[in-house]
Amino acid sequence: MEVAKVLHMNEGIGEASYAKNSLLQQKVILMTKSIRDKAICALYRSLSPETICIADLGCSSGPNTFLAISELIKTIYEESKINGQKQSLEFQVFLIDLPRNDFNTIFRSLPAFYEDLRKQMGDGFDPNCFVAGVAGSFYNRLFPSKSIHFVHSSYSLHWLSQVPDGIENNKGNIYVTSTSPLDVVKAYYEQYERDFVNFLKYRSIELVKGGRMILTMLGRKNEDRYSKACRYYLEPLVMALKELIVEGSIEEEKVNSFNIPGYCPSPAEVKYIVEKEGSFTIDVLETSEIHMDSFDEYNATQCMRASTEPLLVSHFSDELNMDQVYHKCREIFVNGIAKEKTTFTNVIVSLTKIN
Amino acid sequence: MEVAKVLHMNEGIGEASYAKNSLLQQKVILMTKSIRDKAICALYRSLSPETICIADLGCSSGPNTFLAISELIKTIYEESKINGQKQSLEFQVFLIDLPRNDFNTIFRSLPAFYEDLRKQMGDGFDPNCFVAGVAGSFYNRLFPSKSIHFVHSSYSLHWLSQVPDGIENNKGNIYVTSTSPLDVVKAYYEQYERDFVNFLKYRSIELVKGGRMILTMLGRKNEDRYSKACRYYLEPLVMALKELIVEGSIEEEKVNSFNIPGYCPSPAEVKYIVEKEGSFTIDVLETSEIHMDSFDEYNATQCMRASTEPLLVSHFSDELNMDQVYHKCREIFVNGIAKEKTTFTNVIVSLTKIN
Repeated sequence: MEVAKVLHMNEGIGEASYAKNSLLQQKVILMTKSIRDKAICALYRSLSPETICIADLGCSSGPNTFLAISELIKTIYEESKINGQKQSLEFQVFLIDLPRNDFNTIFRSLPAFYEDLRKQMGDGFDPNCFVAGVAGSFYNRLFPSKSIHFVHSSYSLHWLSQVPDGIENNKGNIYVTSTSPLDVVKAYYEQYERDFVNFLKYRSIELVKGGRMILTMLGRKNEDRYSKACRYYLEPLVMALKELIVEGSIEEEKVNSFNIPGYCPSPAEVKYIVEKEGSFTIDVLETSEIHMDSFDEYNATQCMRASTEPLLVSHFSDELNMDQVYHKCREIFVNGIAKEKTTFTNVIVSLTKIN
Repeated sequence: MEVAKVLHMNEGIGEASYAKNSLLQQKVILMTKSIRDKAICALYRSLSPETICIADLGCSSGPNTFLAISELIKTIYEESKINGQKQSLEFQVFLIDLPRNDFNTIFRSLPAFYEDLRKQMGDGFDPNCFVAGVAGSFYNRLFPSKSIHFVHSSYSLHWLSQVPDGIENNKGNIYVTSTSPLDVVKAYYEQYERDFVNFLKYRSIELVKGGRMILTMLGRKNEDRYSKACRYYLEPLVMALKELIVEGSIEEEKVNSFNIPGYCPSPAEVKYIVEKEGSFTIDVLETSEIHMDSFDEYNATQCMRASTEPLLVSHFSDELNMDQVYHKCREIFVNGIAKEKTTFTNVIVSLTKIN
């Protein structure tokens, strides 16, 4: 499976679409606002560019697509007013996602985005905000050298560029869990390290000196690689697939060869890789938690479906009835998993480009 | 009808899609190669930017989308080799069209575009070409100030921002023809002038000093505003609609209130407007003709359908069976129009930004 050709959030605006099922991702973006605001203000004060170039990596397609961007624009605009900035600010915004992302829906919602900005800012605010879409993997080059001031990425960098090689023995699992063999855990980490180093290397070419990045990933609080980090998100899917094997609906072999290209890093792992790559200083590195009390089973299932269905379709093609799979997931959420408190851990890092 | 919300070439890759029916537009792009090459080489020699920012306005979605862009990149690359340029060139390419354009199809064909570029250039050519899509009208701002080096637009600027006001008496016509009243002709020209002035004004803000534009429009050879310029393209559609009135399939009133938002300018009109606006010098201004000998009736009809169907659907909604309309057009092409030699006139202008 080539992840870049398969991975995308469910498109459109229907019941199973990501656009309708991204409450978790929205909460994360709202939670990280203060770190983001501090970074963009520091950037604006130190570089004062006439045109501020911002890239959102993993923008997806839905209500969250413009959330961080519009917050950033408002923050800079307020900051520029404090400083009595007279010249008109201009923003070049790049929205980036993989080629299967639904860019048509993004582009058709642009007028509403501009209208919202104007409403929120009031008093003759003219954003001069120019939005462009870019289809590509952030594990490759995306922009010309020294052309970007600020990179934002939320809930995207835990997706790997590929399912790690050499994890054939991760039987009965579809990601790293407590029953995964040690070499599987190692293979997953090494894939993450390779991918994240590439990410940092390419962004360091594309950012101006003093440029900044705010990266939020689904992660772990500590060094226990067997932690339950991804459990609440993916465990119901594992259980549903196992039930389908028992019922004879799919072959065990087929499930054994299915693995999710995702990894939940710890803060220490992020720190180690950033320092090893060497292009960025770490301004902030912290974890936060989201307790999904209000996150009912239906939402939880739909949220998981929006991001995992394309991977399942690619691996199982027509052998699986997707409605059946996710109906089972929902039942599992209701009967089991949801009785524990559902907690997601985020790792957030604020970086400045050194040279 | 808001043109920016309606106008687009038929999407996807099916039989009626623009992607499959854009032979005419392809011929035009190939015909204008030498003027384009001269302009981009002159730009490269005079400005030598490290990153060359190119915008294609009205890129549509199909085989032509990347045609001019890949020719431009090859030309600059050859030019840089002649000059023994050592540093690696970078290209930032913006593909622009209205929000209803099918950007998803463009983005999914990017890998093939890059692969083609590599094949054609050979010897370890690494294009460092970064493509972004922008959804918007070129009659508004699209980019930050002084951010673009080269603008290309082929077969797009004859589309107006709106159907002119005050042409209710253009009965029995859907554009300017020999039976249109004089005030209708005037209203069409004035709309064109307003739109083209706006276009020039916004591009002059966005282009760097010395930046260049190559614009090709479906146009006229001379000052006869009643010339047959658009005839071969639209006359079969007029005739088909009239037949449908006679057959009682649509109301005459509904057809009378339908007008195409397009205008075919003469070289003198283009010259007058460019000089009046004042931001650009004219390097080249000429007309050329395309004789569609090999352009069979099926192609002609499909080509017309790909660009006019969304306008018809918007105006007539479900009252018209589109297959029926274009089947009639095809019969008209076969029985009448096609017996004359089908000729399209292009007006091409090469411009340099003064300050």
